[in-house]
Amino acid sequence: MAKASVVNRLAIIGIGLIGSSIARAARQHGLAGAIAIADASPEAVATASRLGLGDACGTDAATAVADADLVILCVPVGAMGQVGAAIAGALKPGAIVSDVGSVKGAVMAQLAPHLPGGVHLIPAHPVAGTENSGPEAGFATLFHNRWCIVTPPEGASQQAVDALCAFWAGMGANVETMSAERHDLVLAVTSHLPHLIAYNIVGTAADLEQVTRSEVIKFSAGGFRDFTRIAASDPTMWRDIFLNNKDAVLEMIGRFNEDLAALARAIRWGDGDALFELFTRTRAIRRGIIDSGQETAEPDFGRRHEDDATA
Amino acid sequence: MAKASVVNRLAIIGIGLIGSSIARAARQHGLAGAIAIADASPEAVATASRLGLGDACGTDAATAVADADLVILCVPVGAMGQVGAAIAGALKPGAIVSDVGSVKGAVMAQLAPHLPGGVHLIPAHPVAGTENSGPEAGFATLFHNRWCIVTPPEGASQQAVDALCAFWAGMGANVETMSAERHDLVLAVTSHLPHLIAYNIVGTAADLEQVTRSEVIKFSAGGFRDFTRIAASDPTMWRDIFLNNKDAVLEMIGRFNEDLAALARAIRWGDGDALFELFTRTRAIRRGIIDSGQETAEPDFGRRHEDDATA
Repeated sequence: MAKASVVNRLAIIGIGLIGSSIARAARQHGLAGAIAIADASPEAVATASRLGLGDACGTDAATAVADADLVILCVPVGAMGQVGAAIAGALKPGAIVSDVGSVKGAVMAQLAPHLPGGVHLIPAHPVAGTENSGPEAGFATLFHNRWCIVTPPEGASQQAVDALCAFWAGMGANVETMSAERHDLVLAVTSHLPHLIAYNIVGTAADLEQVTRSEVIKFSAGGFRDFTRIAASDPTMWRDIFLNNKDAVLEMIGRFNEDLAALARAIRWGDGDALFELFTRTRAIRRGIIDSGQETAEPDFGRRHEDDATA
Repeated sequence: MAKASVVNRLAIIGIGLIGSSIARAARQHGLAGAIAIADASPEAVATASRLGLGDACGTDAATAVADADLVILCVPVGAMGQVGAAIAGALKPGAIVSDVGSVKGAVMAQLAPHLPGGVHLIPAHPVAGTENSGPEAGFATLFHNRWCIVTPPEGASQQAVDALCAFWAGMGANVETMSAERHDLVLAVTSHLPHLIAYNIVGTAADLEQVTRSEVIKFSAGGFRDFTRIAASDPTMWRDIFLNNKDAVLEMIGRFNEDLAALARAIRWGDGDALFELFTRTRAIRRGIIDSGQETAEPDFGRRHEDDATA
């Protein structure tokens, strides 16, 4: 499959965690004849050059996409339209333009008006990442055994879709296709709501006047520290996601709030059976995630517990 | 310090994750001359015996505490009163009775009426754990560099408090003393609210009719899977915690809800600056937790990303 998915020239616009992981994985698996990289930040370009992530690196997106067969936009969702406008005139006829944004409806809407006929717009979203940002944060195995969701618009060329899917499969990802609308609903619950809740609880804890920040930090191993990981994700990226998947996110907040109100009521009225019933059901979901290979079975995420050498 | 904290005979009542970790750590650090274990479950007793966790193991708590200098109750918070009544008549004069419960006010209230004069009741709470339960889940380094909060009641014997603190320090824990009331407020935000939120979001996702459970599991690497870890914690233990720290937990839910309402409003009205401001502040909290040694600096909690061998 990897052989069939080789592209002559790959352009990566935006060389952060995801872009740089694509560059590394594509090179490692021999998926691209040449890799051109562009990033608006001269620092990021310098780092990418130093790390040898591409055959060409610069700040001009249009230069990078010239002659590319596959262009992947790895910029925040709110910057897609601007990048689309910048590269439109330089795209090669027949090129595939894709992206890695966590919202798909809004990305389509932003990009489609800019792209010339004869170019294939096939959005995609690899459901993978860490809380770190920047070209140095990426690694070649980031997509391995993670899902990449491809959302072909109506009437998309099947050949182009197949080529993009093969490219992601070649980097070790599992690929699934669905509509942009369905993607945005599913990710609202598996990704956007969790991030919002994590940001919110960390903010709540930081702002309490009755408990000091130093106490919150000291005793965070009681559960709180888990939430701080995704609440340390890139602020620009996540601002754009929430602004661009408003309806689905607000719907999920509504559901979450209803359920939390019921839980608070159970606590207030001492309904232990209701609590026990929920707390038992939720264990099964984690088991399903571990069994499906999307989570480690090691306790505590496999966090390292210090050994006794210094005890 | 370890030398000074050696107790002649240690009794551990309840041999789950925490009890069995204490047994292992106390033995490893030579903190007890002998260890007696009791658990209401014959299966847990059999497992503890097989693992050699104590010098004596049985189902009768009163037998285990006879002649013990330090008794540590490692049972769910809701079972403390019952265990206190069962052991009261068998306690040696001058013995220290402690516990590991995540709520301290209610534990004091449950235990104090049962205990005879001449016995020192000094509650404690090691802020450490994993999502796993049972005697096999424990390990000797669980408390290493974690905080153990000791909540001496007014008028407690300083000698007894010092002995208990030294025992925990001997297992590698950092020890802090505070009032039971303060403990219950601080832990409501660093532990109880995070668990409640995690249980709640996992329940919300499981119950959605628009998104299937299989989709939730598949695409959980987008953030959701992080929450499933603490939502896989022991249901009995957590039911009891919420029922026994009602006021502080309900207060924290109220704060959380206010903040979430403000965030939802920012999303609805497209206030990107408000989102960006919060998402930037929350990064600093994680940095503080890592710098204080309460969290790994490795990305993704140090979760293992599969290597390329099978790619």
